Amino acid sequence: MTEAELQALAGRALEGLGLAPGDAAQVARILVMGDLFGHATHGVLRLESYAQRVDAGAIRADAQPLVEEVAPAVARVDGNGAIGPLTGMRALEAAMERARAVGVGLALVRNGNHFGAIAPYCWLAAQQGFATIVGSNASTTVAPTGGREERLGNNPLGIGVPRPGADPVILDMAMSVVARGKIRAAAKRGESIPATWATDRAGRPTTDPAAALEGFLLPFGGYKGYGLALMVDLIAGVLSGAAYLTHVKSWLDEPAEPGNLGHFFLAIDTRKLGSTEWLAQRVEDFAAIVHATPRADPAQPVRLPGEIEMEKLARHRRDGVAIDAAVRATLERLAARRG
Amino acid sequence: MTEAELQALAGRALEGLGLAPGDAAQVARILVMGDLFGHATHGVLRLESYAQRVDAGAIRADAQPLVEEVAPAVARVDGNGAIGPLTGMRALEAAMERARAVGVGLALVRNGNHFGAIAPYCWLAAQQGFATIVGSNASTTVAPTGGREERLGNNPLGIGVPRPGADPVILDMAMSVVARGKIRAAAKRGESIPATWATDRAGRPTTDPAAALEGFLLPFGGYKGYGLALMVDLIAGVLSGAAYLTHVKSWLDEPAEPGNLGHFFLAIDTRKLGSTEWLAQRVEDFAAIVHATPRADPAQPVRLPGEIEMEKLARHRRDGVAIDAAVRATLERLAARRG
Repeated sequence: MTEAELQALAGRALEGLGLAPGDAAQVARILVMGDLFGHATHGVLRLESYAQRVDAGAIRADAQPLVEEVAPAVARVDGNGAIGPLTGMRALEAAMERARAVGVGLALVRNGNHFGAIAPYCWLAAQQGFATIVGSNASTTVAPTGGREERLGNNPLGIGVPRPGADPVILDMAMSVVARGKIRAAAKRGESIPATWATDRAGRPTTDPAAALEGFLLPFGGYKGYGLALMVDLIAGVLSGAAYLTHVKSWLDEPAEPGNLGHFFLAIDTRKLGSTEWLAQRVEDFAAIVHATPRADPAQPVRLPGEIEMEKLARHRRDGVAIDAAVRATLERLAARRG
Repeated sequence: MTEAELQALAGRALEGLGLAPGDAAQVARILVMGDLFGHATHGVLRLESYAQRVDAGAIRADAQPLVEEVAPAVARVDGNGAIGPLTGMRALEAAMERARAVGVGLALVRNGNHFGAIAPYCWLAAQQGFATIVGSNASTTVAPTGGREERLGNNPLGIGVPRPGADPVILDMAMSVVARGKIRAAAKRGESIPATWATDRAGRPTTDPAAALEGFLLPFGGYKGYGLALMVDLIAGVLSGAAYLTHVKSWLDEPAEPGNLGHFFLAIDTRKLGSTEWLAQRVEDFAAIVHATPRADPAQPVRLPGEIEMEKLARHRRDGVAIDAAVRATLERLAARRG
């Protein structure tokens, strides 16, 4: 499908769920960008589970997030039961609005739901000249270092810096070695997994994806990844007034319960720091130094964070993006709900 | 030595270098806290190399960092050749001052020098109710993922969240699997190192510390640690107007050249978000959930980031801290320079 076709279909599906057209378009934007970046697991595929949660009453399709300014640079956002990416977009806008006014803006979100991937938010903000740091907590899938029970989420963290005239540099990572979806995919294909990805229920590293799905994910980089995941939750969950650690409800276990996820969106207005040309020259030079690194494998280029996603974005915009037939059918079924 | 004795001696040593008494006390505070946290490599030991750089003309002992407000939430700080921790303290104060006014404050630093460990800054800010995110670039010791030449520093990142009535939760980590100092220490002891720590000059993993010191450090967690190190440099180096990547001068190779390191200090005033009691209750609950995780090894507690450092702080404050005789002699020699 072309980007425009996918955006239109996802928008209609969200209208079918009960969202107003403008809100539907914003939510569709975040999910479609997930697909364009090549992360189908955080793309329009998610509309099926969003719809299940709307039908179960855990997400209210007509809800509007509530934005409250607590200081010139800080907004508190109450998701108010709204669909996740709508809350994410409102929070990003609140952070950018404050950054435009005072240089930096922080939006702390409680009562959030799954808000898609982080990279789309960083990308959209970068188009307007904002550097961003964005994080979220998540339902528990990761065990603390030295523990044998999941007590924290994979807590994604994204950092984006604009590159005027080109795609921004964006790091978007979860704190586990791999996402749970990768283990689910291996299980579906009947393949084993590396022993570094996860442990079984008893805390023993396992190569069996079924056992890993019963167990918990391992943080990347050992105690450093674990520490980073905890700090993301302290800001996204504790400081925001949301749930944190084991207080976060899993929508798989409790689909009718609001998740009360916590997020933070920090925006820095780079136009306050120097001209567009100044920033463009510096980031281009930065990129050139990284790209000119002698390669360990001559066939494998040295890349910037997010570069693979930006290449996929360009290709998908040019050639269209393949959407799974079942996912497309779900979107059309939801779109048909429109009155 | 007791904390007070060490603080007084380090302060006199800095006055011997030419710092005014108030500035000397602030710089001493950062370094002494490094020792109290158990990180002697980032403690008063550093005064020897600081003195060498002062004598070489790369650091000016009488210089004052220049703070310029570019927006109500953003300050730009020019280190102006001052000793690193003095610039760090000025930048932290600038970030906190802005956060007090508008909720969040960001200080971007150029012309910085080595500023000690990050944890002391996060700890000092937390005493006043500020959550912090602090980062710095560094001279190149790490190879990009897929590369075989060092192009970035180990770029430390610290995140701190206050825990009213108790020590804050602080993550302070460099982006390499281990610090270069650990490899130097192994070389001194004639011990081999794990092959995951570093590579030799040709980019091959090595267990020989001497070969590793000729080669480069590996980022923790593979491409995720690499990506995080790059993003820290984009904010600390590129956005601040400092040097970045290979533009950062190594003081080992060029002791007389100003390093032009870049740092960022972000402070969030948690008192704008809720009462001290509200935050204390939430962080205590957070800590209790983490500590109650069933242990993989019954003898090894599950810890919060920075907890080991906070235990050492308490012990060193009670029992005193052991300072290497040679380091103490250096401090006394510097102190004797006072006119």
